[in-house]
Amino acid sequence: MGKWLVGVDLGGTTIKIAFITLDGHIVEKWEIPTNINEDGKSIVKDIAQSIKNQLVQLSETEEKLLAIGMGAPGFIDMKTGFIYHAVNIGWKNYALKEELERETGLPVIVDNDANIAAIGEMWLGAGDGEGNLLMVTLGTGVGGGIIVNGHIMHGTNGMAGEIGHITSIPEGGAACNCGKTGCIETIASATGIARIAKEKAGNDKSSALNRILSENGELKAKDVAYAAENGDQAATETLDEVAFHLGLVIANLSNSINPGKIVIGGGVSQAGDVLMSRLEKQFKRFALPRVAEGASLKVATLGNDAGVIGGAWLAKHNI
Amino acid sequence: MGKWLVGVDLGGTTIKIAFITLDGHIVEKWEIPTNINEDGKSIVKDIAQSIKNQLVQLSETEEKLLAIGMGAPGFIDMKTGFIYHAVNIGWKNYALKEELERETGLPVIVDNDANIAAIGEMWLGAGDGEGNLLMVTLGTGVGGGIIVNGHIMHGTNGMAGEIGHITSIPEGGAACNCGKTGCIETIASATGIARIAKEKAGNDKSSALNRILSENGELKAKDVAYAAENGDQAATETLDEVAFHLGLVIANLSNSINPGKIVIGGGVSQAGDVLMSRLEKQFKRFALPRVAEGASLKVATLGNDAGVIGGAWLAKHNI
Repeated sequence: MGKWLVGVDLGGTTIKIAFITLDGHIVEKWEIPTNINEDGKSIVKDIAQSIKNQLVQLSETEEKLLAIGMGAPGFIDMKTGFIYHAVNIGWKNYALKEELERETGLPVIVDNDANIAAIGEMWLGAGDGEGNLLMVTLGTGVGGGIIVNGHIMHGTNGMAGEIGHITSIPEGGAACNCGKTGCIETIASATGIARIAKEKAGNDKSSALNRILSENGELKAKDVAYAAENGDQAATETLDEVAFHLGLVIANLSNSINPGKIVIGGGVSQAGDVLMSRLEKQFKRFALPRVAEGASLKVATLGNDAGVIGGAWLAKHNI
Repeated sequence: MGKWLVGVDLGGTTIKIAFITLDGHIVEKWEIPTNINEDGKSIVKDIAQSIKNQLVQLSETEEKLLAIGMGAPGFIDMKTGFIYHAVNIGWKNYALKEELERETGLPVIVDNDANIAAIGEMWLGAGDGEGNLLMVTLGTGVGGGIIVNGHIMHGTNGMAGEIGHITSIPEGGAACNCGKTGCIETIASATGIARIAKEKAGNDKSSALNRILSENGELKAKDVAYAAENGDQAATETLDEVAFHLGLVIANLSNSINPGKIVIGGGVSQAGDVLMSRLEKQFKRFALPRVAEGASLKVATLGNDAGVIGGAWLAKHNI
């Protein structure tokens, strides 16, 4: 029997952990809560203890495990595995790699959570092994990861792939959490889609979105997708606008980095064809013909498992 | 005495060749005309013969040479050194690497001309050794090269770095040679700057640009820079517009690839501070603060030597 890799994906509320074989089969996956008390000081101990408990459950010993690959939010120094700042967790200047190695006795590699999701999709998901891949994650915010020749692009100070803050509306755009205005995150995130839909529905009293809004007290991106599928005009216009801006961003980036696969993930990607067909149209409009020929646009397939799978890949290839 | 590398930079009218030491010192550089007759069939023989002649002149033998690194226009398959199509030269499906190796008996590596210029600037120019570099060449068109961890980014089918065709004006922009409209090449190239300046001068009869236009029968980018330095309003507005669009393109790309150095080359970069100060202002406006902190914006320093120097670097590192 072969050895196992450990993938860990740290989020603000839960930590996903999995044992994964060298060829990418998930043997066991589970979650534990993220304890952010006292600046997250128990997190590493919790992970180590949970891995030990799970081995006992599976009647295995620590010799079964090869290495840990872990994704974490925030800025990470790849050489040292040091986290400068992870806002949601409470870590500041935290030696994550070193601490987790000490607690588990295993070699550890850490990277940004959006990057390991991109690697996961490259390995076993929609990326289908393509070594030049752009991943765009449309969730509460817009995140991303860029893979070049099979390696995550980090850039000069770890900011590569932060595509949510590409400016789409240079003047008069909505305020973004980053302090700028008009970022693609203000348009193509779940939050951005809901905001635009509310504006459009306000101008169109007959829109089904108004009924959903008054019944539920809020409007979600999936309500907009559902209404658009049913021909609602305000919803359709919303998705047209989102696809125009996102298609332009992806095409412009592709004209520069020339990916073979463009993988759209995150909750918003579950809107499916009603969004993807519009996105593909705008992408092809703004991409150079040879760039468009070289790239296929896909919805992510690994869902919440992308992070632990990407972590396992990193562990396999870097340790 | 150490051996020499050969850098070759093929253009539509001249071929630049240089003998360069392993530490980047140019021993000898010269040019020969590009003979595009009969679909450029004599070009490779011309290069080989010229290298032999120059060795004789310098009283050296072929043993002095290690390898050739060559830049060529068009799409190049990096693995095979095969050129799909070089419009200005006449080559189609041409086995450049193989032919040049046969004629010279030396190992050859070929890459795109914009890419080797970027590598040249990284090695000995404004890039100052920075392994994450974005080069933007503002000439008749707008070209580019992206270097990631010291390696040229090629993308899935050789289109990476084609930043001239990033769409800056998605609707109603000027027609571009690529078939799209509103590409940054239609705005920030020498041709684009002249076009915008003519429009602005047409609306401002008092502009000095009108006098230059009627005296010379044409308006050049350097006339616009000179007039802007002297406070001409139409010229100033032209550079403001160019810097707005180019600054936005560079910032958006930097938010994704996070370069340590951004090098602006080509004839237009000689406009100097009157352009660069405006560009830096717009770049900082649209880049994430940490991305702007990580990147410095510089004018290219190697001029026409960037190609042969980059070619020599490629020869040194790949053979």
